[in-house]
Amino acid sequence: MRTADIGVVGLAVMGSNLARNFARHGFTVAVYNRTYAKTQELIAEHGGDGDFVPSEELADFVASLKRPRKAMIMVQAGKATDAVIESLAELMEPGDMIIDGGNAHFENTRRREAALRERGIHFVGTGVSGGEEGALNGPSIMPGGSAESYESLGPILEAISAKAPDGTPCCTRLGPDGAGHFVKMVHNGIEYSDMQLIGEAYDLLRRGAGIEPTELSKIFSEWNTGDLDSYLIEITAEVLGHTDAATGKPFVDVVLDQAGQKGTGRWTVQIALDLGVPVTGIAEATFARALSSGTRQREGAVGVLSGPDGGVDLPESFVDDVRQALYASKIVAYAQGFDQIAAANAEFGWDIDLGSCAALWRSGCIIRAGFLDKITAAWRGNPGLPTLLAAPEFTKIVTEAQDAWRRVVSAAVQAGIPTPGFSAALAYYDGLRSKRLPAALIQGQRDFFGAHTYKRVDREGTFHTEWSGDRSETEL
Amino acid sequence: MRTADIGVVGLAVMGSNLARNFARHGFTVAVYNRTYAKTQELIAEHGGDGDFVPSEELADFVASLKRPRKAMIMVQAGKATDAVIESLAELMEPGDMIIDGGNAHFENTRRREAALRERGIHFVGTGVSGGEEGALNGPSIMPGGSAESYESLGPILEAISAKAPDGTPCCTRLGPDGAGHFVKMVHNGIEYSDMQLIGEAYDLLRRGAGIEPTELSKIFSEWNTGDLDSYLIEITAEVLGHTDAATGKPFVDVVLDQAGQKGTGRWTVQIALDLGVPVTGIAEATFARALSSGTRQREGAVGVLSGPDGGVDLPESFVDDVRQALYASKIVAYAQGFDQIAAANAEFGWDIDLGSCAALWRSGCIIRAGFLDKITAAWRGNPGLPTLLAAPEFTKIVTEAQDAWRRVVSAAVQAGIPTPGFSAALAYYDGLRSKRLPAALIQGQRDFFGAHTYKRVDREGTFHTEWSGDRSETEL
Repeated sequence: MRTADIGVVGLAVMGSNLARNFARHGFTVAVYNRTYAKTQELIAEHGGDGDFVPSEELADFVASLKRPRKAMIMVQAGKATDAVIESLAELMEPGDMIIDGGNAHFENTRRREAALRERGIHFVGTGVSGGEEGALNGPSIMPGGSAESYESLGPILEAISAKAPDGTPCCTRLGPDGAGHFVKMVHNGIEYSDMQLIGEAYDLLRRGAGIEPTELSKIFSEWNTGDLDSYLIEITAEVLGHTDAATGKPFVDVVLDQAGQKGTGRWTVQIALDLGVPVTGIAEATFARALSSGTRQREGAVGVLSGPDGGVDLPESFVDDVRQALYASKIVAYAQGFDQIAAANAEFGWDIDLGSCAALWRSGCIIRAGFLDKITAAWRGNPGLPTLLAAPEFTKIVTEAQDAWRRVVSAAVQAGIPTPGFSAALAYYDGLRSKRLPAALIQGQRDFFGAHTYKRVDREGTFHTEWSGDRSETEL
Repeated sequence: MRTADIGVVGLAVMGSNLARNFARHGFTVAVYNRTYAKTQELIAEHGGDGDFVPSEELADFVASLKRPRKAMIMVQAGKATDAVIESLAELMEPGDMIIDGGNAHFENTRRREAALRERGIHFVGTGVSGGEEGALNGPSIMPGGSAESYESLGPILEAISAKAPDGTPCCTRLGPDGAGHFVKMVHNGIEYSDMQLIGEAYDLLRRGAGIEPTELSKIFSEWNTGDLDSYLIEITAEVLGHTDAATGKPFVDVVLDQAGQKGTGRWTVQIALDLGVPVTGIAEATFARALSSGTRQREGAVGVLSGPDGGVDLPESFVDDVRQALYASKIVAYAQGFDQIAAANAEFGWDIDLGSCAALWRSGCIIRAGFLDKITAAWRGNPGLPTLLAAPEFTKIVTEAQDAWRRVVSAAVQAGIPTPGFSAALAYYDGLRSKRLPAALIQGQRDFFGAHTYKRVDREGTFHTEWSGDRSETEL
């Protein structure tokens, strides 16, 4: 008894792959699943990976853990998670730890952490990214929770995590309570944006420039050797290069063009609205998926609403223009995501280090990319940057890319190819650098119809104009 | 005792103007305010408007109402509203009505309605739009609540409401529980979008075409005589034509360009995300306000991020191009808003009539506009329209406007003037009418890294490809 370094509750594919990853790194791993057959299956098939301690009863599972106990739960978000937490907590003692590795909403994590803290138990909400393959071979891990919990838990998580190109583990304690799940949520939001931008690049080159998927696969492979080097570009090349066996057609042509979503993109945008942070790249990506699945609207519009469908003159440089537009738009999406994390620091009293976020996304996770080295360096070089775009390296990249970026958005508009992500990113860029915005007019309108008041550029104070009277100005 | 037809609780400017409006229409109005001085002030200043029954105590206020009692509360949203509701409910009897005319979140209205229904009291969440002036002279009124409550309440509300050009009251029962506040929320979201689009038109003509505010005021006045005829265009002309007395400069130039917001735009987008309805026009408008108020980011970007600032060759037709782009973008924002109401019907079991929504926005409210007649006719002509854009009249308008629309967005992109609203609307239009969207590629990516599965265009079922194996396809 009490021999296991860590335990895993919930042995679906993510849970069992994490358990195997712990075992392969020399940890003794307690394993438990509500249906014991799953546990037996894991031991039968992968018992050779290392030292497992299977239990049929949860009490035995808890008893098999070394103190302070560490139980990582990989179960369905929501009620299932709450039920498992309660069962574990009843069997645990002060100082023990429950680690939630699912995609919980960070507000739930904050609630659970506060409730368990009162009982002396550490609750560690942890983002885990990298899918099934990452869970087994090294995910990017984003833990929140107390500093105390990380003292004994951190080394175990760091051991199984992905390693960045410079060898550092892609696992860092990000901050208390919900900080880890918050960062994972923003990671997923950025992932939505990355995927949408790649989709737009594909659409422009396919419909706009008439390049076929096999050739596009080569283009994305080539892009993957340069600035855009990333997991998502790599798998895009794979997907575009794949031929459907049943029809002999390009795989991408036989897939129904309705994108699904599980909710983290939506959460990111909803929370950004509460925080007042414009994450337009993530919002457009999330809404683009919703549009694609709006079959009733699409069926009512296709063939009814007129407009061009490709067929404009494109410059010879178009393929490289698209590459640059993609890169610039992607940088904007990251700038917005980091803004959101910075705003959460202020709102929730966290102290999430933006450089550490960027660093632990360098390997293991879905948005892993070469350019995260640059982002890491930017935040570490100047943690007080007002926006990632103001980091000299990124200012330079976007400056160089912007002629191409403007050409591409302009061409898309003329060709009738929707680029909500590229367009929103460019509008954000132009908005941020505008000396004066039409928000002044909006404040005038608001004061006119609702007496919402306004501020002036030339002196302090809050003002109202008597619009329906003599139009004199009152200072309030 | 028991002489008042209706009562108003909360006599700040909106509440007292509504009370005066009731009185002017011949209703006997009970009035109550927590601080009695406010009540006395109303009687002293406006007692001549009609028949008021002031009460210092809430019990006397309730006792002064005819049965079934009707008390309209105009107090701060949130806890203040809950407290007043509870105090009133304790003094009321089954069959009585509490009407909340504030901007409550419709989920709170659903909660309150359900709780009061158990006690036999009708709770009527009601949108009231038109600002202070509308409250006094005829607002657009959007009631939810039970059909039974509307039998005796409806005629009173209809009497004080604005009247559409054809004479019908801008007040219709929209549906049970939160339906009225939901419609008011979407109204406000559309208002955000309208204001942003007008702001972009202004920015394009000012920074892009170099037209000064006095001249712009005339242009907006002229637009107000055509398709764009609306309250917001009208007051835009007023605001742009106003000169700041202190400096002699155009008023719009002395106002700080940071737009405020009270939350209904944000709610609209957050709920649309839950409902899976792309309301990109409202989202971009809400985020544009957030961007304008992001002083830290803007200060870090202005003068640092490079790019054009106007100074491109514009066609002679540019002013009219902008007018057409504004009109087309506006139609898209309305199409998205109506989609959201239709989605709420399905989600909450409501039966909000879209034609009635459009009809009651024709007068009294902030988004009142000539073209709401066209929208009313479109929904009444075909309540099953898959999207407003597919109504023949709107298809025609957008078809005619789209060359100008594309020229304007293209020019904006080249001139470095942010048009997030115009761009998002055009991307939505092009997305909706696309036969194939790159969502197919996104489904391929999702299946690759997360085994999220996909559907095929050529047969039913759910499929997964073994990406890390032999790339065979499995039907699940």
